[in-house]
Amino acid sequence: MNSFGTLLRLSTFGESHGPAMGGILDGMPPGLHLDLSIAEGLLARRRPGQAVGTSQRKESDCVEWLSGFSPEGLTLGSSIGFIIRNKDARSKDYDLELRPLRPNHADFTYMEKYGIHDFRGGGRASARETVSWVAAGGLVLAWLHSLGISVSAESFPGGDVKAAMCDGDSIGGYVKCRIEGLKAGVGQPVGDKLHARLAAAMMSINAAKAFEYGDGIAAASMRGSQAADLFKPGLPKESPCITNHSGGVQGGISNGMPVELRVWFKPTPTIMQEISTVDMNGRPCTMPPAGRHDACVALRAAPIVEAMAALVIGDLLLQGAATESFGVAKRIF
Amino acid sequence: MNSFGTLLRLSTFGESHGPAMGGILDGMPPGLHLDLSIAEGLLARRRPGQAVGTSQRKESDCVEWLSGFSPEGLTLGSSIGFIIRNKDARSKDYDLELRPLRPNHADFTYMEKYGIHDFRGGGRASARETVSWVAAGGLVLAWLHSLGISVSAESFPGGDVKAAMCDGDSIGGYVKCRIEGLKAGVGQPVGDKLHARLAAAMMSINAAKAFEYGDGIAAASMRGSQAADLFKPGLPKESPCITNHSGGVQGGISNGMPVELRVWFKPTPTIMQEISTVDMNGRPCTMPPAGRHDACVALRAAPIVEAMAALVIGDLLLQGAATESFGVAKRIF
Amino acid sequence: MNSFGTLLRLSTFGESHGPAMGGILDGMPPGLHLDLSIAEGLLARRRPGQAVGTSQRKESDCVEWLSGFSPEGLTLGSSIGFIIRNKDARSKDYDLELRPLRPNHADFTYMEKYGIHDFRGGGRASARETVSWVAAGGLVLAWLHSLGISVSAESFPGGDVKAAMCDGDSIGGYVKCRIEGLKAGVGQPVGDKLHARLAAAMMSINAAKAFEYGDGIAAASMRGSQAADLFKPGLPKESPCITNHSGGVQGGISNGMPVELRVWFKPTPTIMQEISTVDMNGRPCTMPPAGRHDACVALRAAPIVEAMAALVIGDLLLQGAATESFGVAKRIF
Amino acid sequence: MNSFGTLLRLSTFGESHGPAMGGILDGMPPGLHLDLSIAEGLLARRRPGQAVGTSQRKESDCVEWLSGFSPEGLTLGSSIGFIIRNKDARSKDYDLELRPLRPNHADFTYMEKYGIHDFRGGGRASARETVSWVAAGGLVLAWLHSLGISVSAESFPGGDVKAAMCDGDSIGGYVKCRIEGLKAGVGQPVGDKLHARLAAAMMSINAAKAFEYGDGIAAASMRGSQAADLFKPGLPKESPCITNHSGGVQGGISNGMPVELRVWFKPTPTIMQEISTVDMNGRPCTMPPAGRHDACVALRAAPIVEAMAALVIGDLLLQGAATESFGVAKRIF
Repeated sequence: MNSFGTLLRLSTFGESHGPAMGGILDGMPPGLHLDLSIAEGLLARRRPGQAVGTSQRKESDCVEWLSGFSPEGLTLGSSIGFIIRNKDARSKDYDLELRPLRPNHADFTYMEKYGIHDFRGGGRASARETVSWVAAGGLVLAWLHSLGISVSAESFPGGDVKAAMCDGDSIGGYVKCRIEGLKAGVGQPVGDKLHARLAAAMMSINAAKAFEYGDGIAAASMRGSQAADLFKPGLPKESPCITNHSGGVQGGISNGMPVELRVWFKPTPTIMQEISTVDMNGRPCTMPPAGRHDACVALRAAPIVEAMAALVIGDLLLQGAATESFGVAKRIF
Repeated sequence: MNSFGTLLRLSTFGESHGPAMGGILDGMPPGLHLDLSIAEGLLARRRPGQAVGTSQRKESDCVEWLSGFSPEGLTLGSSIGFIIRNKDARSKDYDLELRPLRPNHADFTYMEKYGIHDFRGGGRASARETVSWVAAGGLVLAWLHSLGISVSAESFPGGDVKAAMCDGDSIGGYVKCRIEGLKAGVGQPVGDKLHARLAAAMMSINAAKAFEYGDGIAAASMRGSQAADLFKPGLPKESPCITNHSGGVQGGISNGMPVELRVWFKPTPTIMQEISTVDMNGRPCTMPPAGRHDACVALRAAPIVEAMAALVIGDLLLQGAATESFGVAKRIF
Repeated sequence: MNSFGTLLRLSTFGESHGPAMGGILDGMPPGLHLDLSIAEGLLARRRPGQAVGTSQRKESDCVEWLSGFSPEGLTLGSSIGFIIRNKDARSKDYDLELRPLRPNHADFTYMEKYGIHDFRGGGRASARETVSWVAAGGLVLAWLHSLGISVSAESFPGGDVKAAMCDGDSIGGYVKCRIEGLKAGVGQPVGDKLHARLAAAMMSINAAKAFEYGDGIAAASMRGSQAADLFKPGLPKESPCITNHSGGVQGGISNGMPVELRVWFKPTPTIMQEISTVDMNGRPCTMPPAGRHDACVALRAAPIVEAMAALVIGDLLLQGAATESFGVAKRIF
Repeated sequence: MNSFGTLLRLSTFGESHGPAMGGILDGMPPGLHLDLSIAEGLLARRRPGQAVGTSQRKESDCVEWLSGFSPEGLTLGSSIGFIIRNKDARSKDYDLELRPLRPNHADFTYMEKYGIHDFRGGGRASARETVSWVAAGGLVLAWLHSLGISVSAESFPGGDVKAAMCDGDSIGGYVKCRIEGLKAGVGQPVGDKLHARLAAAMMSINAAKAFEYGDGIAAASMRGSQAADLFKPGLPKESPCITNHSGGVQGGISNGMPVELRVWFKPTPTIMQEISTVDMNGRPCTMPPAGRHDACVALRAAPIVEAMAALVIGDLLLQGAATESFGVAKRIF
């Protein structure tokens, strides 16, 4: 289905070359004065055409917020609907008669699953979808900021982007993300572990291939005596451990240390080279070199990673509130 | 919450040293004759004390199936309840007056979240919990087998297990998993991508630190021209692509190639060495060397990975059935 | 939360006097050619100002479908986003300085729950919200029609509407609804019984106070020998029972007879009389006589009942498909 | 599916004549000292054989709590698993070779849906299932009591029970339920309205045919001026309105007045008379007069109604906590 989250739930819609992308963010607490410029800033960072190696497609990504705010701009506690009109959608770039199946894209799998597919720009499978995630995630980030929680991600190419561009090729990359200000106690056991929810959110981003938190893969070749995060005497709230091998999560629940994760992205399969492929009938054909594309999609992924992290943290904060409001548990926020 | 899945949903309960572990598997199709020995075989592989480097705790793990089967042994389509009594629970090994917080365990985070914790054996946070996953996942595996789908995982240590044992230490490791026989079209867009669901399931396993599928992290330093899975002419169902960089998933949906993933585990923090730590009041104390423990938890993780993979695949097969039963899509299974 | 359904899920947004109402309908099967005029016809029937006793507010209710359809108009299987702009929103009719709490409206309870409320036209609590339900439900009805399932509801006043209007008062009423063409086997046990889901959907409609199916309340004073729906020899699919005391549902699952239900509505509390009330501080004040309002809301409820019934049936058909696609069960549709 | 609730979720299993009934109650807050005798008292009231007109089947209904409590008896915040062994299950009373379809039972619909059915005592469709609801609901009631919330229901026959028994027949009835101590602000808009959730829960009880709250059906023939619940000056928390036509719910959210509802039940179709019916092949046959049965099932329904009400209230309290913990809303409990 086209949703993320339980108590803070984002549902989205939109095909790459349809009239609009958009979504509903349900569950935002009432009475918040959110700094909308945070969402706008995040959208601006996601926008293509900003860095070397990103697509030249022009997207103004102007969000129209349709509900959920009082005339004074405070959240009402009701669902927040929003749309982002698709502009500069040059259908002819994509809408080819022969419809070659683009390798490593979702053309083939969507056709196998649905028996129908909007081939224009990848339709629903396009990374254009992430614009809705970033719009909604930006709102949540604004809320988290007001709680003293920050989420910051940075993109890194996996190789020489300029060389890839010269060769009409693409290159993979990765994003490091760090969540600070999260107190101990956020996350659920078994079915909603903090890092499992983060993993699912990150792996939902187009082209993501791997997820690590804390020591990640390196942990596998470490010894227990080496990987232990010893506690500081006094268990200081803002930093209870001496080290952070755990990446801020123990038993699926935050421990008060920064949450640290990495997401790894493959190179985009859309490149400026002719590709041998087949059409839906399995007949061999060729794909002409692509027009606009991102030589390194990972370079645009950092704001998307931040948005997804915010959606997960916000949802788990709300889930935790139920636990904390009754019984003996302390209130965290 | 303590559940996994939407249409095929496993809910579980149980503390490590309580009377029983158990669960409810809801959504299994009716009229199936399941080979229960598959579940039993999976439980046997998970059982400690079998390989060098695994805990000597004796668990017979005898599952009592309490509902959901006809007198003839066919599934009724109703929820399947089951329990596994806890035996050999030597409370005194764990129930210390001082209650030192075990580093990298969930003692601290559970206390922070809930204000109360069953310290005996880790309570709800114990890897003992996975016995319920394996019991239920084993049932699902039996169903998948009947559809021609196999799931096979293999464990690898991340270093020298025997050396670690000699030193009273522990070592990390990883599990490779391969799902074969899955036709193209399984998985949902956006919110339930096949690999995102697999990532969440795998990261739910105790001590998991990283998840990869297909080329995984290696993809980040590859070029697009290099990572493309070109289609075979004729698009043969059982193997439509020449290579499998994608790990059997494109756009969140299976493409008919084997699904390939890896899960990376940290070393267990429980070791046969005295550890400096603090108690709940932050006062320094020491943990005596542990008794029974797994020197390499990854070695027992393969059947758990198989169980979790089965739960995800089963759920997505059922979700897909809705799509396939109406409209133009072909029926997959 | 602002959603209905599991596999066919409608999520909505919008305040009565905000820029737009709208929603996302997720889960519609792919490749369907839906007759959009069915949705439009349903919206037309819901529109105020059509019958004696309904509000004179003019709403053109023009739906803009934003996603989920191919250029040829076939469903893609993706989420269907839509908006309906609010027009003729005469804020001054409602936006009073003193903000008297309207008795039997949601002003007080929303303020108590959220600490903030959009008082203009009832904000999120307005019956204006049902326009999104009818738009989406109309789409689902079009699908159900293609499966041979019809849903028809009729409104009845609970007293003399004209007399009520003359007196500047309002009157209650009820809606009878009949679902035909539903084969046996639709509905889930325990947590998603067909009639329980219908009850929840109907009681979600503004001003609904009671729900009955089959014999309803009358069943309570009947004897078992009298209320039995004896089977016809041969169990004819289209009508397996001689009578229909059960209203087409047995054990939460359709039995192939028409599903029959009734929904009872209170009179709208908005009337053309001055009302004594209090403001948010509990200070006594008066409400001036209302302007536009429905003297009998039940008269506009029939298309809303049809829309909600369609959403429930569609969801349960999809849920059933999972059961029917595997194992021994027959395929129903 | 076999579950109720979102944050406080009960999942159940069990066939009437299988080894055990049981369930998992997930989401109970941690650190609560629950008075288990409340659950036991509720189970005792549900037990058959206590009043004239109820089945003589002997059920000791001894609940074994398997998890979720600390050694000291406090809730841990983890899922609470429990089982109730089935005793006195006299299979031969029911397990007839010919398998006549019992009219108004779920035999036919389960067979149509699943293609398989446990006919012994109705299998999963038996009212025996409600024993798990009452066990779990009893726990929740104990929690609600600690918050000052009480739920009390009373059963009424719909006619002369003794006359019905003399005639070997059965009779319908109804249950009135009143929830007191619930503060204003409990319930969600649109998709989880308090009365809609209550309606779904009550209609899930075997043999329920109608649901009313507040004025219910009578509201339909009332005028708006007559049905208004005018506010008291000062808006006293414990009773803000002069009257309670609304039954304690406005706009889907509690208003601080007692919540009042009624549930109507049909007569059990199992009677001490020979009944003409058909078998699964549609061939006419007769059902011999039933052995043990309830002449008036409504008489045993009051504790079930209380249990279901408690489950709904508990879930909505937890959902509300998310809203109340952040933003401007006041904390309710």
